[in-house]
Parts: sequence; structure tokens; C-alpha cells
Amino acid sequence: MPAQVSVIGIGGVPEVQPGNDLAALVTEAATRQRTPLASGDVLVVSQKVVSKAEGRVVDLKSVTPSPFALEVARTWQKDPRHVEVVLREARRIVRMDQGIIITETHHGFRCANSGVDASNVPGEETVTLLPVHPDASAEAIRRGVRQLAAVDVAVIVSDTFGRPWREGAVNVAIGVAGLEPLVDYRGRLDTCGKRLQTTVIAVADELAAAAELVTGKLEKVPAALVRGYTFRPSPGGVGPLLREPSRDLFR
Amino acid sequence: MPAQVSVIGIGGVPEVQPGNDLAALVTEAATRQRTPLASGDVLVVSQKVVSKAEGRVVDLKSVTPSPFALEVARTWQKDPRHVEVVLREARRIVRMDQGIIITETHHGFRCANSGVDASNVPGEETVTLLPVHPDASAEAIRRGVRQLAAVDVAVIVSDTFGRPWREGAVNVAIGVAGLEPLVDYRGRLDTCGKRLQTTVIAVADELAAAAELVTGKLEKVPAALVRGYTFRPSPGGVGPLLREPSRDLFR
Repeated sequence: MPAQVSVIGIGGVPEVQPGNDLAALVTEAATRQRTPLASGDVLVVSQKVVSKAEGRVVDLKSVTPSPFALEVARTWQKDPRHVEVVLREARRIVRMDQGIIITETHHGFRCANSGVDASNVPGEETVTLLPVHPDASAEAIRRGVRQLAAVDVAVIVSDTFGRPWREGAVNVAIGVAGLEPLVDYRGRLDTCGKRLQTTVIAVADELAAAAELVTGKLEKVPAALVRGYTFRPSPGGVGPLLREPSRDLFR
Repeated sequence: MPAQVSVIGIGGVPEVQPGNDLAALVTEAATRQRTPLASGDVLVVSQKVVSKAEGRVVDLKSVTPSPFALEVARTWQKDPRHVEVVLREARRIVRMDQGIIITETHHGFRCANSGVDASNVPGEETVTLLPVHPDASAEAIRRGVRQLAAVDVAVIVSDTFGRPWREGAVNVAIGVAGLEPLVDYRGRLDTCGKRLQTTVIAVADELAAAAELVTGKLEKVPAALVRGYTFRPSPGGVGPLLREPSRDLFR
């Protein structure tokens, strides 16, 4: 019998406030809905609630845009305070065209608007920023779950990123704890006995994408667990997923 | 109770030959392993077996490389016959650097090597090409399953593509039948009652990615079914997933 994986949304999590213990909120919500976390599960938690718990929330009313932010905003009919926050979260502009700002964040993620986002945040003028250290966020949740429920889960913090070439965004991993984010098949034998040359699979991104199928955008389902997937344990870390500049043909 | 989705690998499919009825092979394999296909399932089938069934297989011994293919191959220590096949499957080169050839295929996919691939194909010198019309391939499987098993499934033909910026490949949809590949949240209200501005999710790609978690690369599991995911029925077609050149900042 081939592998079978279940992806289970975790709902009933109250609106997350700065300082909340996310590990506890998610562990309790999973137990309440009678799908308690179990060792070997991959717990995928959306960036939005991680950022809220860590206070990575900005009221645009408090932001003074720079001259450059004002100019960019004027050119593309954007909110200059929003542009200012996007620029502050970036270390480099990848592209700025057609009203789209794609940056490289301080973490090294390449994404629209440095991951700054207003959806699913209370307050008309409030945005979230990505967590400062998403791997540490993932590790803290992993440790918290272990302490609370005595189970050993891997944790992925996920966000919704657009991609070049293809329409539609997909969820990807921005923080990883407890699993190897890449599976490297190079040198292994395929079903025909030939040695695989190049295949490296970003399983952490595939797990994040699978989780989005049950979390969606309109329901209050900020987390999902993936059960039955055999991952390779590792301290984790999202670093291996981020292409080195020297290997990046789309700088 | 939030959504729950199961992803079930379909194994025990014999080595696929040109002319094989893939709908029958997959339907029978699913039944044999006691997870028969059911209406509402999304059936994800790997490009490799679709290409084999459609005879999209090339023996490199039959290929005469052009002068340009010879030059490219010499520069990057590649097999000139492989380069020739890659060029024939392309309508444009997106990037050619560091030994990597990223093309736009005749279908409009942007991917490495025009999707030409030697893994999991019998024969030392044999490669597969992408199906000529992957949407038609998906639709044919969907129709075949309906006729054989009287169930109505959506079908995704998936392949493993690399991405800019991030290491590791992920499975994406290259052919779609029976479901809307994008879910458009624009104008809908988020959990805080704010109108979502930009969120369009490529669910067909997320479904393909989820399927890869159970198909892998080393087992003979060329298909997976995703059960419990509520999709929006539609004739399908992968077109909406392919960004128009005018909107593509990474041509």
C-alpha cells in the first residue's frame, strides 16, 4: 500500500494577540476538535498568526514615508506609508514595475511587498510584517508543543508568495524546525535503475502548499497538521530553500 | 470541524507503454489497493506516465544535433542530442547560463530543459517530452475514469519544475480538467471583514504539490488521489496559470 497523508485544518483558534503562546493556542485547538497533535506530525502555522503573536504589526498611522516612498506611491497610486514599510523590510529591490514591488527581505526571501500584508488583520490601517526570525518562531512552537503535549512535531511557518511565470500564489515555507526542507535524490537510483542526476525536491514548500488546501483565506483556520508524511528529522532551518545569489539567474 | 483532505498514492501501476489506457490502469490500480476512485476526488497523474502512454518518448540515438545544439553542449559539457531535443520543444530561451537551460515551451510553460527528462524512463538513452496537449491528456483521463468507474473526478497532470529564487523543485500542474485552477478571493471579505485586494491562489499547483508528498521519485507511484478537497468545477485548462508575457517581470 503506497503512502497516505492526511491534512487536517486546525480551527477554533481565537484572534491572536501580541504575546500569546501560539504553541498552546494551536495545541489546545487541535485537542478541542479531537485531532490532537501526535509525534511525527508536521504542524504548518500561517505567518499571519505568528506575526501577530510576536507583535510584528504596524499601524500605518505611525509611519512617516521617505521621499522615495512618496515618489513610488505617487507613481503607482499606492499608500506611501505602506510603501515605506515595504522598503524598511527590504535589503534590495528585485523588480519595481507595473505597480508591483518585489523585494529581497532582510531574511533573503524574494517576494512581493517584503511580505507586508493587510489581510486578516483587525484595523483598517494595520499591516503585519514577517517574523524577524521565522526559523526561531518555528522552533519555539515546536518546543512549546513538546512541553505542553509531550509530542514531537516538525513545524513549518508558511506564507503565501507569488511566483515568476505562473499566475496565482502558493503557500511556501518561511520558517522550518525539525525537518529537512529539501529531499535530495541525486545519486539515488530511479525505478529503472538509472542514477538520478538533478532531482532535489522542496518538500517543506510542498507541505506548506498542502496545508493551504485546508486553511484557505476566509476561515479562521490558521494552522494545519500533516499526518502520515515520513520526513527526515533535522534541526531544520529555511536557509537551504533560499537560492544563493551566485546561482540565481533571476536576480 | 475544519476541512480535512487525504492524499493517497496509487501504486501497483505496471510500466506504462505507448498506447496504454492510463485511465484504466490508474482506476484498476486504485481499486486493487482498496482505495477506489470516487466522485469529487482530484486525481493527480505524473507527466512521466502520461508522456509514456502518449508515446512522447525519444531515443537520443535517433537525434541529429544542430550546429547551435553542438555549440551549447560543448560550452556546458552536455549531450548535444539532449540539447537538440530541448531546443525543439522550446519556442524561446528564457535563460541559458551556468549550464542551465530555461525555456518557454510550445505550451507556454517556463521550465528547465523544456520539460525533457531522462529519469524513470527505461533505456540509457531515452528521454520523455511533455505531452503535446496536457489539458487534453487530463480531460481524456477524466472521461476514461467516468466511463470505466462511473465516477466524476477532476484530473491534474503534474510535473516537477524548479523555480527562480528558491532551491528545490516542486510539483505543479501542467494539465487540468474538471476544476478551476485558480481560486480568486479578490473582493471577498477576510476574517476581519476587510475586502481582500490581491489574493489569487493557484490551487491546482497546491494539489499537485500535495500529491508529490505520496508519489515521490523512487517508488512506482505515478498517481495520487486527493480526497475531501472542495474544488470549483470547471472545464479546467492550465491556461489561467500561465502568466501573460505583458505581465511577466521575469521574461
